[in-house]
Amino acid sequence: MKRQNTLTDLLGIHYPLIQAPMLGITTPAMVAAVSNQGGLGSLPVGGLSPEQTRTLLRETKAKTGKPFAVNLFAHSIPERIDEDQLTAMQDFLEKFCREHDLPFTRRAASAFQFHDYRDQVDILLDEQIRVVSFTFGVLEQSVVDQLSQSGTVLVGTATSLEEALVLAGRGVHAVVAQGIEAGGHRGTFLDSSRLPQVGLFSLLPQLVEHLEQPVIAAGGIYDRKTVQAVFTLGASAAQIGSLFLVADESAAVEAQKKAVLASKSTDTVLTNAFTGRWARGIRNRFMEALEASGLALPDYTVQNSLTAPIRAYAQATNRADFLSMWAGQSASKSVRGSTAAIFNALVSSLDFDA
Amino acid sequence: MKRQNTLTDLLGIHYPLIQAPMLGITTPAMVAAVSNQGGLGSLPVGGLSPEQTRTLLRETKAKTGKPFAVNLFAHSIPERIDEDQLTAMQDFLEKFCREHDLPFTRRAASAFQFHDYRDQVDILLDEQIRVVSFTFGVLEQSVVDQLSQSGTVLVGTATSLEEALVLAGRGVHAVVAQGIEAGGHRGTFLDSSRLPQVGLFSLLPQLVEHLEQPVIAAGGIYDRKTVQAVFTLGASAAQIGSLFLVADESAAVEAQKKAVLASKSTDTVLTNAFTGRWARGIRNRFMEALEASGLALPDYTVQNSLTAPIRAYAQATNRADFLSMWAGQSASKSVRGSTAAIFNALVSSLDFDA
Repeated sequence: MKRQNTLTDLLGIHYPLIQAPMLGITTPAMVAAVSNQGGLGSLPVGGLSPEQTRTLLRETKAKTGKPFAVNLFAHSIPERIDEDQLTAMQDFLEKFCREHDLPFTRRAASAFQFHDYRDQVDILLDEQIRVVSFTFGVLEQSVVDQLSQSGTVLVGTATSLEEALVLAGRGVHAVVAQGIEAGGHRGTFLDSSRLPQVGLFSLLPQLVEHLEQPVIAAGGIYDRKTVQAVFTLGASAAQIGSLFLVADESAAVEAQKKAVLASKSTDTVLTNAFTGRWARGIRNRFMEALEASGLALPDYTVQNSLTAPIRAYAQATNRADFLSMWAGQSASKSVRGSTAAIFNALVSSLDFDA
Repeated sequence: MKRQNTLTDLLGIHYPLIQAPMLGITTPAMVAAVSNQGGLGSLPVGGLSPEQTRTLLRETKAKTGKPFAVNLFAHSIPERIDEDQLTAMQDFLEKFCREHDLPFTRRAASAFQFHDYRDQVDILLDEQIRVVSFTFGVLEQSVVDQLSQSGTVLVGTATSLEEALVLAGRGVHAVVAQGIEAGGHRGTFLDSSRLPQVGLFSLLPQLVEHLEQPVIAAGGIYDRKTVQAVFTLGASAAQIGSLFLVADESAAVEAQKKAVLASKSTDTVLTNAFTGRWARGIRNRFMEALEASGLALPDYTVQNSLTAPIRAYAQATNRADFLSMWAGQSASKSVRGSTAAIFNALVSSLDFDA
């Protein structure tokens, strides 16, 4: 298998393999391990404060001198919060938490604070980050231009051909084709309320056919044959997430790791219950209760912020019923061990040329 | 590419390429054209009367002496019809049809007549059909045994690993892995109410890994690279449907063919509006109106039967808004021309060994 192509040159990596950014799972140690082994680690910082962002970047840079990607959320912060939705959702969550012995503190709309990716850009430039990937939309044109002019490689995320064409038109250097199989949040930004559906087998060849930019395949990739298949379909790199969910460097708690390893492909379902945005994760009690409530979901930033303390508490107390256990449809193929060992086993199976 | 394998031997075909059964689209002429060119044509007869079944089999046999598959619906007919659901749905359809200048005739529950696959089995045996494929469940064990003992090759349809294991345990000779990308009805039979989700990229390698039987890949396959990719993932044959949707031998009307060719991958959506079962087709007015109604859907046999006259009228009058336009996520890759020419162009692109 060919080890190098236009994209690997652009990214400055040895193998066309990318570790997917998994917010809440991916640690600087995971990112550095993949980059140190010749792949591209991806550090997720979407929605984090400038201070947190800088700390994580520096922590990662302390562990690797190789290129890695930093992943942003390219959406805009809502100008106002719908108070009625917020009240109804807090009523529900308060009752739910009481029933399940979870802490919950109500907040006024004015108490919510959100971070905008625009406040992270200077840090990325300061820290001379080589690759910036993003999801949930398109970075505004001035940011695209500023990063491009400084030599940053920009990678967008598409869940349909139409989204890929928008990204390509705005000047990204590569596009991730995020198949329906992928775990975590859908990057969908055109008509993001509609149920996402496009499988990698349909999405990937269409993007390859219509884009001049290299295409990165994501969703359901976990071994030799799945990597080979995405290259057959024209991908320039394979982006792999769930395979690392149970790695030593993963921030997932043991309850989540066990659920991942025991999951069937039909257990990982699309839900918008946790954050107001569609995401794939392992079905659990929180998801089912919120879906059954029939409540209108506040915007991503709000709903994500509302459920964050519940999920954090569940993580601290190892309670899988109340975690957002993002995972792809082949997540049961995750492997225990060090990230470097998992990555190297995959590389060995692929017979790359020298 | 290897032309022959265990499955091609079993099916008695020259190339590991199968035309998917598309009820309402596939004609005996389409089936015969594929079989005559060395693939396996599939004649859909699910839900048809024994007389219709025999007529279609004989028509196909008159056009080809090569093996072809006959595709059955393996579900059971409901013992009783829910009268309240029936009344509510007929109220809705009557009003909808009046608004859109479509004919609609109410029927009493006692007026519905359904056909059971058990009444088709003797005909299949009489006509010495070599391959029987099926969807919507598992043929009852006595039928499996009867067909197997007569030398019939049995092919089941799975949308999850769990379904594939059930089929394998019942003694089928091969299993179709139906990815979420595929057009038409989902074969789902374990928990068929839940939204289907598993992409081919996750489903196919899992089936290959866990089954002793050969696996046939279906969903999003339309050209050289997509066929190659399913073989890379371990498939023994590629099943191709939407590519033939606009072929000369397709029963699709021109309005549907135009909609197929113009479709984006996000235009083909999962719906249960037309038949009470999940199926993938191009979004249109009928689908949206029925979904917006919020009505409970009667069982497949009933809802399918209720909407059939509307769809037949829409077909006769070339009105795409009221047809069930089943199509896969890569349906826009369909090609005009004769089925034989479309099939041969695909074969030529594949560089099969001699």
